[in-house]
Amino acid sequence: MDPREDEYRGQPGTLHMSEDLSETKCWALLSTQQTGRFGFLRDGAVHIYPVNYLVQDGAIYFRTRDDGDIGSALPLEGCAFQVDQVRSEAMAGWSVLANGTADVVRDEALLTELWGRSAEEPWAGGSRTTFVELQAGTISGRSVQAV
Amino acid sequence: MDPREDEYRGQPGTLHMSEDLSETKCWALLSTQQTGRFGFLRDGAVHIYPVNYLVQDGAIYFRTRDDGDIGSALPLEGCAFQVDQVRSEAMAGWSVLANGTADVVRDEALLTELWGRSAEEPWAGGSRTTFVELQAGTISGRSVQAV
Repeated sequence: MDPREDEYRGQPGTLHMSEDLSETKCWALLSTQQTGRFGFLRDGAVHIYPVNYLVQDGAIYFRTRDDGDIGSALPLEGCAFQVDQVRSEAMAGWSVLANGTADVVRDEALLTELWGRSAEEPWAGGSRTTFVELQAGTISGRSVQAV
Repeated sequence: MDPREDEYRGQPGTLHMSEDLSETKCWALLSTQQTGRFGFLRDGAVHIYPVNYLVQDGAIYFRTRDDGDIGSALPLEGCAFQVDQVRSEAMAGWSVLANGTADVVRDEALLTELWGRSAEEPWAGGSRTTFVELQAGTISGRSVQAV
């Protein structure tokens, strides 16, 4: 028996199934959302900001200002992109975390493609004409469900 | 005139008001949500996980496993706690970022208080009996609204 089952037995609503997600499933889930969170290290502290994003060919793209907190720190290693769908009241949902390097997109053909797909404006508005590409070296995720 | 207004004039739905939030407003917003994201550096990469949390006396608390990814890395400096409420389709919402140090809560009086308030189970379920305290040295936030 799963030791957690024993521990929580008899306490309604506190029994959970937690499942590690495959890479394929992680990418599939990433493609279902519009807004994620980009995390990076700057001046010795982790910064996290919400961004609207696109997934294409195993990379994550979002727009930012070239002189903003993210833009001026590029290129970045060891940064993170996290997306979740958490239903707190149901204690269910999933979270996916991608780690890798982020840099400005300079390839013109790719930029044309990204601008064509970029129906969603950057969440924070304003002039955000720099596309950032995050190449995910690792991706992992977990889904949680109350049973 | 705000230069952004000029840039986006005539493009429906792309005109935004972005506002930096005061510390007081940031704490007030933090208290309205149940789930946030904890970000920290481990093995040279930023990790971000969703957690259910409490705010008390200018600190943020959440439960974790003592042997998990977060628990075994404590104490942590330069870590982050981020909460947002983003309505992607409306291009509106807010995001708050707190930075500081995180450590295990060992004070028994405080633990009694936290367990008393901890109506919400940890999002990921399972046995998460370690309370983590994040003392926010800095807190900042932004609200965005389409106009």
